[in-house]
Amino acid sequence: PLNGLACKDPKMVDASDFSSSGLHIAGNTSNPAGSKVTPMTAAQIPGLNSLGISLVRIDYAPWGINPPHTHPRATEILNVLEGSLEVGFVTSNPQNRLITKVLQKGDVFVFPIALIHYQRNVGNGNVIAIAALSSQNPGFITIANAVFGSKPHITSDILMKAFQVDNNVISNIQSKF
Amino acid sequence: PLNGLACKDPKMVDASDFSSSGLHIAGNTSNPAGSKVTPMTAAQIPGLNSLGISLVRIDYAPWGINPPHTHPRATEILNVLEGSLEVGFVTSNPQNRLITKVLQKGDVFVFPIALIHYQRNVGNGNVIAIAALSSQNPGFITIANAVFGSKPHITSDILMKAFQVDNNVISNIQSKF
Amino acid sequence: PLNGLACKDPKMVDASDFSSSGLHIAGNTSNPAGSKVTPMTAAQIPGLNSLGISLVRIDYAPWGINPPHTHPRATEILNVLEGSLEVGFVTSNPQNRLITKVLQKGDVFVFPIALIHYQRNVGNGNVIAIAALSSQNPGFITIANAVFGSKPHITSDILMKAFQVDNNVISNIQSKF
Amino acid sequence: PLNGLACKDPKMVDASDFSSSGLHIAGNTSNPAGSKVTPMTAAQIPGLNSLGISLVRIDYAPWGINPPHTHPRATEILNVLEGSLEVGFVTSNPQNRLITKVLQKGDVFVFPIALIHYQRNVGNGNVIAIAALSSQNPGFITIANAVFGSKPHITSDILMKAFQVDNNVISNIQSKF
Amino acid sequence: PLNGLACKDPKMVDASDFSSSGLHIAGNTSNPAGSKVTPMTAAQIPGLNSLGISLVRIDYAPWGINPPHTHPRATEILNVLEGSLEVGFVTSNPQNRLITKVLQKGDVFVFPIALIHYQRNVGNGNVIAIAALSSQNPGFITIANAVFGSKPHITSDILMKAFQVDNNVISNIQSKF
Amino acid sequence: PLNGLACKDPKMVDASDFSSSGLHIAGNTSNPAGSKVTPMTAAQIPGLNSLGISLVRIDYAPWGINPPHTHPRATEILNVLEGSLEVGFVTSNPQNRLITKVLQKGDVFVFPIALIHYQRNVGNGNVIAIAALSSQNPGFITIANAVFGSKPHITSDILMKAFQVDNNVISNIQSKF
Repeated sequence: PLNGLACKDPKMVDASDFSSSGLHIAGNTSNPAGSKVTPMTAAQIPGLNSLGISLVRIDYAPWGINPPHTHPRATEILNVLEGSLEVGFVTSNPQNRLITKVLQKGDVFVFPIALIHYQRNVGNGNVIAIAALSSQNPGFITIANAVFGSKPHITSDILMKAFQVDNNVISNIQSKF
Repeated sequence: PLNGLACKDPKMVDASDFSSSGLHIAGNTSNPAGSKVTPMTAAQIPGLNSLGISLVRIDYAPWGINPPHTHPRATEILNVLEGSLEVGFVTSNPQNRLITKVLQKGDVFVFPIALIHYQRNVGNGNVIAIAALSSQNPGFITIANAVFGSKPHITSDILMKAFQVDNNVISNIQSKF
Repeated sequence: PLNGLACKDPKMVDASDFSSSGLHIAGNTSNPAGSKVTPMTAAQIPGLNSLGISLVRIDYAPWGINPPHTHPRATEILNVLEGSLEVGFVTSNPQNRLITKVLQKGDVFVFPIALIHYQRNVGNGNVIAIAALSSQNPGFITIANAVFGSKPHITSDILMKAFQVDNNVISNIQSKF
Repeated sequence: PLNGLACKDPKMVDASDFSSSGLHIAGNTSNPAGSKVTPMTAAQIPGLNSLGISLVRIDYAPWGINPPHTHPRATEILNVLEGSLEVGFVTSNPQNRLITKVLQKGDVFVFPIALIHYQRNVGNGNVIAIAALSSQNPGFITIANAVFGSKPHITSDILMKAFQVDNNVISNIQSKF
Repeated sequence: PLNGLACKDPKMVDASDFSSSGLHIAGNTSNPAGSKVTPMTAAQIPGLNSLGISLVRIDYAPWGINPPHTHPRATEILNVLEGSLEVGFVTSNPQNRLITKVLQKGDVFVFPIALIHYQRNVGNGNVIAIAALSSQNPGFITIANAVFGSKPHITSDILMKAFQVDNNVISNIQSKF
Repeated sequence: PLNGLACKDPKMVDASDFSSSGLHIAGNTSNPAGSKVTPMTAAQIPGLNSLGISLVRIDYAPWGINPPHTHPRATEILNVLEGSLEVGFVTSNPQNRLITKVLQKGDVFVFPIALIHYQRNVGNGNVIAIAALSSQNPGFITIANAVFGSKPHITSDILMKAFQVDNNVISNIQSKF
């Protein structure tokens, strides 16, 4: 009954409520970031509702990135299936320490709940990762899109002061989103 | 500070607290069940403590099984990387319905918290799966081991009545664990 | 609003939403196990919904058992009102330690959430117990019924490997449920 | 690790950590209220720590009361073992509705978390009740004792205005605690 | 979906779902207590639903009180904007310690969840405070109103024994509510 | 015992554990953003530990901003005491809707947990606000500081792709933090 979604009568559920398919299919990374997230959350699997977990596959083209983003309601644990992947998260104020590592196939890394994090393919082959999130509805907030591409835009004066650049730079970035 | 484990001062943590390696290595399935679970929980990654998530790799030899078991503190979501895998869980009393499905590569399946579930490789090749659990310390209870292999044994009279078989059968099963 | 059950307008509730009766009546123990659980959960008392607690009365005929079972969403605390009762629970893998004790009238025992546990009347008189559970909807999973009596049955191959017995034994047990 | 109490290493626990005794012994009701609560909380049973449940026995002399009180961290569900017991709780502002009922042997009643409630033996025999609480450390606040018997006393001016009586009445009540 | 209130489709929410106004307006303190609470909870701001926080403004006439009360589902943190305010809460049984302090402008004080607490203006000017509560639906229970002004009244016998006064005193207090 | 901080024995606490002072003092806004947050969290008030709430005062110079930021563990509810304040938050992907409003004295606004939000003084006088957060340790992450001012810096290649600007722009922004 969370997220406004109703729960089925337990006597009526069947395997289709608890399963989905397609996570073996490479996501299309032909986009500026060079990465693609394929989600398996309560939106795809109704039986996940209220159970506090979900899964995603992430594909990265060579040197592709999953740009700095947060999950407002979930911690993430990521496992590299193929390739070499630089990962990092930034701790909160005032330290803002960057905790970073280059992962190889078989490595696992944790991004604590709601911290800003990113990944980057640091090889010439594709990278494939599977990541789990501690919510059936974790939320995804891409920092650049939310800050410079919101609808409507955040007043430029705020962004100029926040990023300490002039209006031309702000307008230029906003024009990309 | 959960599970009796202390939390590190946030200023002192580094990448090693949030990572581990080796999940690309096939588990040794040369055992009667023909499967092996390789965990990545708070015991392997201290930074997971209190964050409510963990990961496991499961390997299955041809026709190997992950026998009926439960996780007392976690829901599981499993993704098949290679092979064909029969999965199932049983709902609680009084229905005790078996919800089952044969998964192929790329399929995903959910085992709700603390319900009895199992997997079986239904092919002649190896199966590899990655599963996520909604606790940093999910617990693993293999039904047969807990019921027939506890130390000390559960009084046979109880098992005879519970499984409605005679003492020879109980003793026979107990002798295997 | 949990479990798909709606919450009443607080201005409309009355004492009938918060009460029930009949827990003084001995349950009928004329069954193979020789025990009977009488529940007082949100199904019996709507006002319990979302409040995280429930109660049961358990009757045991002489030498009757409450067979190995779990509550997927609740810890249980049991109080013996009459008689002598052996109780036990098994810790999770890999120890699978059996923690057991013979309780007398007035004794109290705790079964931690989702662990396999049982009780057995170890006297020639009836035993009466009252137990509380830390959920309004704790769930009851009788191990033997869920493993050998699910509808449909779990494939015998899985049970043969899990319990390390041959198909005759499995079929025999399945025929009892 | 909650309540400042450490958790034992799970490998070291034994049955004594999960049990206690004496709940068959009638509490001494020779006191002005004519009732006695015998608790089984984490203070008596260390293994209850963090498990979210506890139990109490309550004895009531003929016409004895368990005066208006609250549990700041728990809902209560009460079961009458012997006798006739009037129970009631008051809903919050602005309705302050009294939800009340006379319970007989075998009846069950729920007191939602932190609401003011009471019980009264409305017969000439003893009443015995068992109640469960949805916290291992529920807390007990007897309204009259907390308001009129705190150490030090609440300034009389506050109590005069709150209860709309003069200082003599306040001093008189305070002198009883 | 908590409290029986439905959640809006996130795509349909706008600023009006997350805002309200009027907290700069002094509450009318022309009442016997000499204080007024102006709430900003989920009843006033629908977007607060499930978010676990709310705000109130409290006005106190000179020597006015906010009489002993509890919030069954929330801790409170109060900040004095103007004036001098005596505050206090009473710990649970058996200590019933009064923790009290006179706050000045800019001081902050915490009232732990569900404990009985009060405030009193101890100056000749008005006092203004802003307090936050750790629930979108904290509940307010004024002790005197709930105990002596419930509808219907609690049986006088119970109140006589609880407060250790005779029936005239009880009737007198009840007549004020 | 949360956050690695120990809990005091309840018998030893006094008013100093539950209070602090100084929230009437204007924060120093002589900084590039033109704003200052003065916190009252568990770091300032030990008694808040585990209670799930905290308070901050925010001062804004004329046209000062509280730049885009998040609280990883808390929802915020803000109340304007003086002045005119533009506030906004951005919803998660894929909508990234900006929900914004200009608040006047007495207005209240909610920023849901972990969403990016900001405030801006849109007047020529000072603005004062009091905000409450639904955690005793909410965390503060200033987006620009975390993304462009982390120690060490995030690799420029990642930021170039994320913000779709060239290296000069990235280096320029990084040089400001």
